[in-house]
Amino acid sequence: MIIVDRISEMQALMRQCRREGKTIGFVPTMGYLHEGHAALIDRAREENDMVVVSIFVNPLQFGPNEDFARYPRDFARDRHIAEQRGVDVLFHPEAGEMYPGPLTVQAVVKARTDVLCGRSRPGHFDGVATVLIKLFHIVMPDRAYFGMKDAQQVAVVDGLIRDFNFPIELVPVPTVREADGLAKSSRNVYLSSQERKEAPALYQALQAAAAAVEEGERSGDALRRLVKEHIEAHTHAEIDYVEVCSYPDLTPLETLHGTVLVAVAVRFTSARLIDNVILRLPEAPRQEE
Amino acid sequence: MIIVDRISEMQALMRQCRREGKTIGFVPTMGYLHEGHAALIDRAREENDMVVVSIFVNPLQFGPNEDFARYPRDFARDRHIAEQRGVDVLFHPEAGEMYPGPLTVQAVVKARTDVLCGRSRPGHFDGVATVLIKLFHIVMPDRAYFGMKDAQQVAVVDGLIRDFNFPIELVPVPTVREADGLAKSSRNVYLSSQERKEAPALYQALQAAAAAVEEGERSGDALRRLVKEHIEAHTHAEIDYVEVCSYPDLTPLETLHGTVLVAVAVRFTSARLIDNVILRLPEAPRQEE
Repeated sequence: MIIVDRISEMQALMRQCRREGKTIGFVPTMGYLHEGHAALIDRAREENDMVVVSIFVNPLQFGPNEDFARYPRDFARDRHIAEQRGVDVLFHPEAGEMYPGPLTVQAVVKARTDVLCGRSRPGHFDGVATVLIKLFHIVMPDRAYFGMKDAQQVAVVDGLIRDFNFPIELVPVPTVREADGLAKSSRNVYLSSQERKEAPALYQALQAAAAAVEEGERSGDALRRLVKEHIEAHTHAEIDYVEVCSYPDLTPLETLHGTVLVAVAVRFTSARLIDNVILRLPEAPRQEE
Repeated sequence: MIIVDRISEMQALMRQCRREGKTIGFVPTMGYLHEGHAALIDRAREENDMVVVSIFVNPLQFGPNEDFARYPRDFARDRHIAEQRGVDVLFHPEAGEMYPGPLTVQAVVKARTDVLCGRSRPGHFDGVATVLIKLFHIVMPDRAYFGMKDAQQVAVVDGLIRDFNFPIELVPVPTVREADGLAKSSRNVYLSSQERKEAPALYQALQAAAAAVEEGERSGDALRRLVKEHIEAHTHAEIDYVEVCSYPDLTPLETLHGTVLVAVAVRFTSARLIDNVILRLPEAPRQEE
């Protein structure tokens, strides 16, 4: 595995790979790799000649009151995991390499951000989009892999790739779960043993929503209520949001149709957990124009 | 010469060219080609295996009170000029191909815009940067050619390419001039015969500024005054601005050092003309940090 920390070196290396006709799969991360990342790497490994993983805790996507400084970092461990997983190139730049001075230009995400987690993190997705533009130009991948655990991020990246005509295929990878359905997350270790027993109720609630839709439910409000009541009945968590919206546009839905995202965020004592499911319904009939 | 109007076709064609190891030179234009564009095309022709010209009047860079609808278009003529000049591929998309719906993400230029022409065109360079990001991803060039006639645009593109790590070399091409020094422009035809006689005074004023610096002048204000007085003495034009600033940062300078841009904009009866020169001075000694 090659470890690169300079942009110019990375671009030269990737140019050489492309010249040799190799396809490149890219997994951008903020490090502290876990099984969710491993699933992205495995999928990239299956589909490409080369797998590139970036590890960069991007200051631009943290708000002033967020935990940029405290964000966990463990490069030795990440490096070991990446190597074991068959990663070819690990790109690990310093902040000063990525942002040598103030930016003269930045990406601003104008849609898909004022719902779900984006509502409470103004500017977060501008920072995500800006660093991804940079990373995409540095790595020049054929495919980029993102976990559906953060469905809103995938929706924003979908818009970024589509609207800016990046010659890159976005590959969304399904959420990795524990045997009892709890979505894997670095934050699960912060749950008390009682909370850990309750936490699978999130995914159970989402599955109950899927079952209701299967049986004909088409009301967004009814679905929100169903999920909310299930979580309230089975956990002591505080609900941050339960949202039912179109995907990838993330418009809240009154009547369900097309591709639908049902997403939840809850707060336990020391951990905020998120989860979601995607449901595929028939499209609404097009309105006459 | 191949004419392409679909993005997907363009990307497939360019991918094939790259696979064959060809270098690609790109000249983005809004059409209505003149000798300034021809100089860009000629330079691209010298330096690359393939020359791609885009013709797209970008609605995003026009303000609500600007002349998007009236902007001159003549595709038959442009096509003829491009073919004669040895262009390989002409990319000529419809607005609906470039902007099929509202953008979810846009570029915002945060520096180099609140001076010179940018001051009176809020949002203009956001539109320029956004369409260039799209065009760069569609054409995937090795080099992109821009005329120094619009020095501010070159400075903004320099920031865009650098800050977003585009693997593209920016090639600024010197302004093409008439025998008497007047910068070539489609708008020169709108000058009265008296104004046409006066117009070379712009370049003469800039040359006088260059001579003064050569002789030791280091005051930004003195240089502004010199240019202003020369234009006022030799033309009936109304001066829009005379600016002396660092390049490419475009910070107004009190004391001249490093790369300096001297730029003017004036209004004649029916035409607004711009011109500039770049002067290279020793760098200021670095301040202790």
